[in-house]
Amino acid sequence: MFISVIGGSECTEEEAKLAREVGRELAKRGATVVCGGLTGVMRAVCQGAKEAGGRTVGILPGNDPKEANPYVDIPIVTGMGYARNAIVVKSGRAVIAFAGNFGTLSEIGHALAEEIPVIGLRTWKLARDEKMDSSIILADSPVDAVDKAMTAAKTRESPTPS
Amino acid sequence: MFISVIGGSECTEEEAKLAREVGRELAKRGATVVCGGLTGVMRAVCQGAKEAGGRTVGILPGNDPKEANPYVDIPIVTGMGYARNAIVVKSGRAVIAFAGNFGTLSEIGHALAEEIPVIGLRTWKLARDEKMDSSIILADSPVDAVDKAMTAAKTRESPTPS
Amino acid sequence: MFISVIGGSECTEEEAKLAREVGRELAKRGATVVCGGLTGVMRAVCQGAKEAGGRTVGILPGNDPKEANPYVDIPIVTGMGYARNAIVVKSGRAVIAFAGNFGTLSEIGHALAEEIPVIGLRTWKLARDEKMDSSIILADSPVDAVDKAMTAAKTRESPTPS
Amino acid sequence: MFISVIGGSECTEEEAKLAREVGRELAKRGATVVCGGLTGVMRAVCQGAKEAGGRTVGILPGNDPKEANPYVDIPIVTGMGYARNAIVVKSGRAVIAFAGNFGTLSEIGHALAEEIPVIGLRTWKLARDEKMDSSIILADSPVDAVDKAMTAAKTRESPTPS
Repeated sequence: MFISVIGGSECTEEEAKLAREVGRELAKRGATVVCGGLTGVMRAVCQGAKEAGGRTVGILPGNDPKEANPYVDIPIVTGMGYARNAIVVKSGRAVIAFAGNFGTLSEIGHALAEEIPVIGLRTWKLARDEKMDSSIILADSPVDAVDKAMTAAKTRESPTPS
Repeated sequence: MFISVIGGSECTEEEAKLAREVGRELAKRGATVVCGGLTGVMRAVCQGAKEAGGRTVGILPGNDPKEANPYVDIPIVTGMGYARNAIVVKSGRAVIAFAGNFGTLSEIGHALAEEIPVIGLRTWKLARDEKMDSSIILADSPVDAVDKAMTAAKTRESPTPS
Repeated sequence: MFISVIGGSECTEEEAKLAREVGRELAKRGATVVCGGLTGVMRAVCQGAKEAGGRTVGILPGNDPKEANPYVDIPIVTGMGYARNAIVVKSGRAVIAFAGNFGTLSEIGHALAEEIPVIGLRTWKLARDEKMDSSIILADSPVDAVDKAMTAAKTRESPTPS
Repeated sequence: MFISVIGGSECTEEEAKLAREVGRELAKRGATVVCGGLTGVMRAVCQGAKEAGGRTVGILPGNDPKEANPYVDIPIVTGMGYARNAIVVKSGRAVIAFAGNFGTLSEIGHALAEEIPVIGLRTWKLARDEKMDSSIILADSPVDAVDKAMTAAKTRESPTPS
């Protein structure tokens, strides 16, 4: 199972700790982490995944595989800049959005536009016409986020027989 | 001056009326409209621009120039699906976000990530950590949105001499 | 009618003269020139088109519209690097390949893969299994290239009624 | 070490046999195969790699990971159509071009434009101005192609100290 994790290239130490826990939990459940491959949340989630024996994919914006953080197993070199964000979310069966800034917001938009489930942990809140948008599935901890992502991904994999 | 207008491929009649006014106002000020080239808000803004003698560019997701609405002068055929959203916002010097759904949200994220000014009219509201995000410049009418977009675009074009 | 012209970012003076003539001839026939927007053949073909009152589109690899040559009317900012080559050829109804290097070769490949007619003037020759490949329509002068491109583009536009 | 293998989505049985051998040889040397993830040469090279215990990445043109052939371990979902070809070649440290059609030609062009070494086995021959182009390193067997690709990739990895 491939799960995308999106989040900012800068994060606090506390956020890095939580992102690392997300990575570890995903690896424990046998999921491969897909992310943007750079620093901050991306680095922390890959580090956590590797600590638990998992596998990590980094979809890089630039032209050099060396821009990947040291915990990326499989660097994909797009040379497309932020347009690569669409590939990051499409390559997961579900997306965990953790904290993040505007790049993360673009990825949330891409995922929801393609009907890919998005689990949100301390991330953007969205409203339209004074009403909160409830498309993001809220999680309150790394374990909760990973549980919800695995469930959403499996549901997408196995359509109910008609 | 190139101004991008982003918004949903489906819209109400009232929204179409307002989007058309955005297009007309942009054309009156000599701006070229850049958009995703399809239906809904994209079609209405192009229609308005052409009514006022303006010029329109449609950055299409598919492989066929005929998918452009009839008011697109210059269809750009990307074949990249929604990953083309990054090109739509980058090709404008400022972005007007009008109403819209998740695709529009991804475009808002891409624009703000690249520090392209975004003027919002009846569009997404964003919050982080219980605080409203104020990165989108709010407008309360088509004329106001176009005024603010032209001002923001000119500021970007002409950096203050040091 | 949109015609793409592909060729290197560096060229000799003689090549620039011929490329300029390609641009002028396209403009005289009312065609819009689509190209990669940079220097060399791209600049010369845009210059020729503007001299004859034509219209030019530059699909740029980088993030700055100012990287366009001064004869580009409509700069499209992709930020995708050379992956934008696919967009250059798809946005034309036919492609004129003039001289060029490996970037041009990638564009010839993209065009032929999508069954977009390619007219070649002093450009790559291709062979497979010791046999010359005849997929590129050969031209021997700028006027001949433009004639053949316009014919191929029109044929593509107007399918034979069944 | 990541090595990209490019080739057509249709191939003869003899070509499939050779492509499978390329995959096996790459896996034996510990290289990860990167390819377009679909049928024909792409499928055969992945099959060979898996038979020898290797790892395979498929950079898919569409939106569905299920379009990957059954021997792809890591499907990357781009939704970008053939514009994904640039990503296929950039994600390898060297490229083996085996047979192939126009899509393969576009990939050869992208690779050479980015100065990525290309090893050719029964693939396109290129000429400019009546002279053969010698940028493609010729190989005469799967083992020879893999040897040359590994050498070229290592040379790229380890620049001579100054």
